Amino acid sequence: MTLTPVLNRLDRDLDAALDRLMALLRIPSISTDPAYAGDCQSAADWLVSDLASIGFAAEKRPTPGHPMVVAHGGEGAPHLLFYGHYDVQPVDPIELWDRPPFEPAVEDTPRGKVIRGRGTSDDKGQLMTFIEAMRAWVAENGALPCKITIFLEGEEESGSPSLVPFLKENAAELKADFAMICDTTMFDGRVPAITTQLRGLLAEEVILTGPARDLHSGMYGGLAVNPIHVLARIVADLHDEDGRVTLEGFYDDVPELPEAIRAQWEALGFDPARFLGDVGLSVPAGEAGRTPLEKLWSRPTAEVNGIWGGYTGEGFKTVLPSKASAKISFRLVGDQDPEKIHAAFVRHVETRLPADVTAEFPNGHGAPASRMRTDDPAFEAARRALGEEWGMEAAFIGSGGSIPIAGYFQELLGVDSMLIGFGRDDDQIHSPNEKYDLESFHKGMRSWARILAALAG
Amino acid sequence: MTLTPVLNRLDRDLDAALDRLMALLRIPSISTDPAYAGDCQSAADWLVSDLASIGFAAEKRPTPGHPMVVAHGGEGAPHLLFYGHYDVQPVDPIELWDRPPFEPAVEDTPRGKVIRGRGTSDDKGQLMTFIEAMRAWVAENGALPCKITIFLEGEEESGSPSLVPFLKENAAELKADFAMICDTTMFDGRVPAITTQLRGLLAEEVILTGPARDLHSGMYGGLAVNPIHVLARIVADLHDEDGRVTLEGFYDDVPELPEAIRAQWEALGFDPARFLGDVGLSVPAGEAGRTPLEKLWSRPTAEVNGIWGGYTGEGFKTVLPSKASAKISFRLVGDQDPEKIHAAFVRHVETRLPADVTAEFPNGHGAPASRMRTDDPAFEAARRALGEEWGMEAAFIGSGGSIPIAGYFQELLGVDSMLIGFGRDDDQIHSPNEKYDLESFHKGMRSWARILAALAG
Repeated sequence: MTLTPVLNRLDRDLDAALDRLMALLRIPSISTDPAYAGDCQSAADWLVSDLASIGFAAEKRPTPGHPMVVAHGGEGAPHLLFYGHYDVQPVDPIELWDRPPFEPAVEDTPRGKVIRGRGTSDDKGQLMTFIEAMRAWVAENGALPCKITIFLEGEEESGSPSLVPFLKENAAELKADFAMICDTTMFDGRVPAITTQLRGLLAEEVILTGPARDLHSGMYGGLAVNPIHVLARIVADLHDEDGRVTLEGFYDDVPELPEAIRAQWEALGFDPARFLGDVGLSVPAGEAGRTPLEKLWSRPTAEVNGIWGGYTGEGFKTVLPSKASAKISFRLVGDQDPEKIHAAFVRHVETRLPADVTAEFPNGHGAPASRMRTDDPAFEAARRALGEEWGMEAAFIGSGGSIPIAGYFQELLGVDSMLIGFGRDDDQIHSPNEKYDLESFHKGMRSWARILAALAG
Repeated sequence: MTLTPVLNRLDRDLDAALDRLMALLRIPSISTDPAYAGDCQSAADWLVSDLASIGFAAEKRPTPGHPMVVAHGGEGAPHLLFYGHYDVQPVDPIELWDRPPFEPAVEDTPRGKVIRGRGTSDDKGQLMTFIEAMRAWVAENGALPCKITIFLEGEEESGSPSLVPFLKENAAELKADFAMICDTTMFDGRVPAITTQLRGLLAEEVILTGPARDLHSGMYGGLAVNPIHVLARIVADLHDEDGRVTLEGFYDDVPELPEAIRAQWEALGFDPARFLGDVGLSVPAGEAGRTPLEKLWSRPTAEVNGIWGGYTGEGFKTVLPSKASAKISFRLVGDQDPEKIHAAFVRHVETRLPADVTAEFPNGHGAPASRMRTDDPAFEAARRALGEEWGMEAAFIGSGGSIPIAGYFQELLGVDSMLIGFGRDDDQIHSPNEKYDLESFHKGMRSWARILAALAG
């Protein structure tokens, strides 16, 4: 079992690998829109067929929604569970695309060649990196280096409604030594990284009702309670002057960052001015006394994602509205319990309701944060393998976003995940003109070959 | 010149008057939405034609916005200037209407017959009361009882942008002894009333911009400033704990209520529990230490009429938005200067902007409060005529709503107004299912006939 011929084959066969990716990208497998349900089936069929051609025992497994793809191959320790998703985001606003989103192509740009099209970075281009690495491995060595299970989902972009039941029903089949999740970015677009801690998420919606109907603000203003004023107070009071969240007990289960991790993150040389500058900002906001990476990866937050009430059209309508609403998300870290935070949020709201104003809390849901046991030597082996491919020390990093699959693997399968992806911050996932750097695709495949060699060696 | 035959004719011709009103109501003359500009023209044309049929010299006068209707008729003192507006509010939320808003009908309700549809009470139903009174007067007496000018506007619901220039250009033509404005309610839905003091209005829109584009709240939350949080603070800080508006100098030009007026208002027996109970409320909100009628008529307010930012659709989208906006109206009293209050509001916002957040203030406009010289005997004559029609002493009252036209008539024409309307508090103007009581329409016409007789007598 040798690595170098595998790497050479990946270089040699890059055009063929691109052709295969293009075929998958041309299938418009938008999971949120029922009109594309047949395309989700087609994408799953394509993957089953491709995995079978490598020698996997691959199957399309039905769910109440879009199907899962499960494939098994290889023998020997460790047992690795690879995860990706074949569904993609909708393409609206379509008029902002410079090319049809499902007619992908390699384009030359000032920053190098990119593969342009919906799903290139999220997540078809990424999942094909490990499939191509396995294809080359089998071609050169006659077999996979260890027992490998591939698990591909088709509902990631629509809330994964079938995921938890499927994992519960098939836990024995899917349980492995480690999960390898390929759906994340490199650090700061440059440094190869393994994400080992993920913030959780508590999503809350609150609807306040005051008057039974919208009122004329001249006729009633000054005497009737205005739910927008009440909501504004509730939102304004979510943070204190230091940017800390004021919910009772919010920080009880928030650990301080271990010094070793803090040092590692400081070494990353994160440039907040560049990070913020890219989106038109200059000054780090948020919790006082915390470094920018702490704020993004290891500190909890409360963000209002949406607010509305009263008249929001053109011109003026002097309404005193019946209702006002907000959607608020809390990013959770450490051992923060979504149910406990939900209860604290409800108290925060209810203690600020004046007479005649009621609150509803529909649609709330949450998932706790995840941290991997990075003291297992496999983590360090994978980190070294990544560093060798990219010629740059790889890092264990955190992620501000929530990737629920990693939490479910821990909770339902008892499996820790290595989140290794090759996306870039400028990939415009979920937006028009999504791209995936050709370098990410090429070095991504080579990275997986190196990681397979390191973990199975 | 006799009154009784006119009153009899108004009773006899009620159905024909209703048919005319229905024709006008069916024209969707929504002035705020450019899509209905043609309908505003149609409503003006309809009125010109109807007034000409009574014998008025009626014209549609162009403006940069929607046209004015000006009609002259009759001879002799006093010269009365009648005002109404033919434009109506938008109909959102359309799904809350029990009938199409522009397919009006007379409906039986537990409280009697009502005319249902957009514009029935505000203001087409009201302006037709004086037109019908004049039609009957001419039919019975051969001519109007005095010199009458009718002036109908088509931009009242969209801030009247053309009004001031038009009044300035045509001041000599429009100047009269008194203006009669028919766009108000009876007191408490029962007592006929002449409104003699009106709150002014300053309408403000504020748009905050933070990040250059909407961000992923997981990827940026905790480090990037969220304009919704900033807006919530700005709104929450508009009032102190006693419900007083916090803008600097806001109360400088607010007079205390004269004792005589206070006594008159107390005698009205206003029942705040019923007033609020009708709209599902029970406890008077607003400024501490003020009576309910003071709060509604003679105290200034700040009300947020609309707020929005971020994702407001179904489900969750964990966006950290680029923009957040609010529409805020200040009701002004006494000598409060809209420009001075606007400047104080801008300061209130700007002192609360953190780094990287900018504010724009588009579309703001304002008009000061108005108070009439009720010591002129014509006011008392009109008050007596109203009382005779309704069998109940009529009152001089205040109005919480802003009717800028009264201020402009004072300022630009030097004319005091009698605001006499027959709307009810439950007419749901500006809301779904707007209605006008059939009794208001019928007795409103008869009231104007009596007032014409009293003033021209």
